Amino acid sequence: MEYFSSRATVRTFDPARHIAEETLREIVEKAAHAPNTGNMQLYSVVSTRDRGMKAKVSKLHYDQPAAKGADVLLTVCADTRRFDAWCEARDAQSGLNNFGGRLSAVVDASIFAQQIVTIAEMTGIGCCYLGTAMYNADDFCELLHLPEGVIPVVGIAMGYPLHEEAKGSDRLPPDAILHEETYSDYTPADIDRIYKEKESLPESEGFIKENSKSTLAQVYADIRYPAELNKAVGEKMLRQMKAGE
Amino acid sequence: MEYFSSRATVRTFDPARHIAEETLREIVEKAAHAPNTGNMQLYSVVSTRDRGMKAKVSKLHYDQPAAKGADVLLTVCADTRRFDAWCEARDAQSGLNNFGGRLSAVVDASIFAQQIVTIAEMTGIGCCYLGTAMYNADDFCELLHLPEGVIPVVGIAMGYPLHEEAKGSDRLPPDAILHEETYSDYTPADIDRIYKEKESLPESEGFIKENSKSTLAQVYADIRYPAELNKAVGEKMLRQMKAGE
Repeated sequence: MEYFSSRATVRTFDPARHIAEETLREIVEKAAHAPNTGNMQLYSVVSTRDRGMKAKVSKLHYDQPAAKGADVLLTVCADTRRFDAWCEARDAQSGLNNFGGRLSAVVDASIFAQQIVTIAEMTGIGCCYLGTAMYNADDFCELLHLPEGVIPVVGIAMGYPLHEEAKGSDRLPPDAILHEETYSDYTPADIDRIYKEKESLPESEGFIKENSKSTLAQVYADIRYPAELNKAVGEKMLRQMKAGE
Repeated sequence: MEYFSSRATVRTFDPARHIAEETLREIVEKAAHAPNTGNMQLYSVVSTRDRGMKAKVSKLHYDQPAAKGADVLLTVCADTRRFDAWCEARDAQSGLNNFGGRLSAVVDASIFAQQIVTIAEMTGIGCCYLGTAMYNADDFCELLHLPEGVIPVVGIAMGYPLHEEAKGSDRLPPDAILHEETYSDYTPADIDRIYKEKESLPESEGFIKENSKSTLAQVYADIRYPAELNKAVGEKMLRQMKAGE
């Protein structure tokens, strides 16, 4: 149980050590025992090992170091296609070709991805989620030959860690996340208390200076996750999630 | 590692054993170390222990036995509200009030929910996901006082198992899920092979008979997850995910 509090994302991988195909297959097999919607398993994963393909996938992740240096890149997809193909072959009319069905598949894919990460990390493999899979969803579909109903949700960069990573990572206190009986909306005093530790980290001051901002929240809101970016990603994803509706 | 392949959903809970508040808090604290979008932790969880509230939450889950008999009910929510409140208090303009931001929050909430389930199950607590949280998203918002930007994604029924559950659960073979380098779309022959085991389970025949259908796929497509249901759930969720856009 110690693992859960001390885990940390790994972004630098040992180029001399490789994840065996059999190891990856075992991780996927174990991860598929995670709960999912009605046991329809509305997810798939595409693995990238080929050197040329890795360069292309990494490029779609903006060549961030974790992607560029990964031993294996995974693209975990929401997948209603396999269920649809089953229905087609069995005289049934799939009801998942719509936003609601695709949203269940996004949840399934996320749960499945997290099970892969947990199992991999417990086995000593380092992982880094790549949220950029959604940013370039259309290009991923083209590159990985994803048919309609198969939508990239998250990428995972994997490999054996090059060096011991700093353990743990800063998180909001549990009472910031857990609401008992009903949701208590956050007052400015709550916000001060909840974000105090995060805002007082030495790196936070660095981020503010680097970006010529006056608060850490501005770094997130203006630089890292601005509205235009989220809106553009949302439009792309929504189009795919509604396909065939 | 044995746990991952042998885990099973628990739907019957011991009414005499209770999950201590401290235990739940520890699970949430550990689970919050799961990866998330840019360390914004775009999720919250509302716990339900109060007898009267449990009856109301269970009703919104259609009083399915796992919900009705749960010791604690959790509603795991996609949450951009906390981040927004932080931005409001720090002279920043949140960019997450749109479908794209909410979709990242749905992924974060799903990953966080799965980390809760893994930790709880490893501690001997039984869990059952309740996908019905999305079906009645609006009613959950009202009952649990969820403000705009806080969207129920999954429920989790928790408690100590009343009896030893059958271990494991049927899943598609790993090569049905893992695609190497590019996605290979499913041929009718693939479908026959992949679904063979599932279709030959004794309970599958029972489901077909009970529902007067001719294939198992029809049971799923016509009875359990029909298009009208998914479309209605999708509309509800989409409205919430776009709120304030």
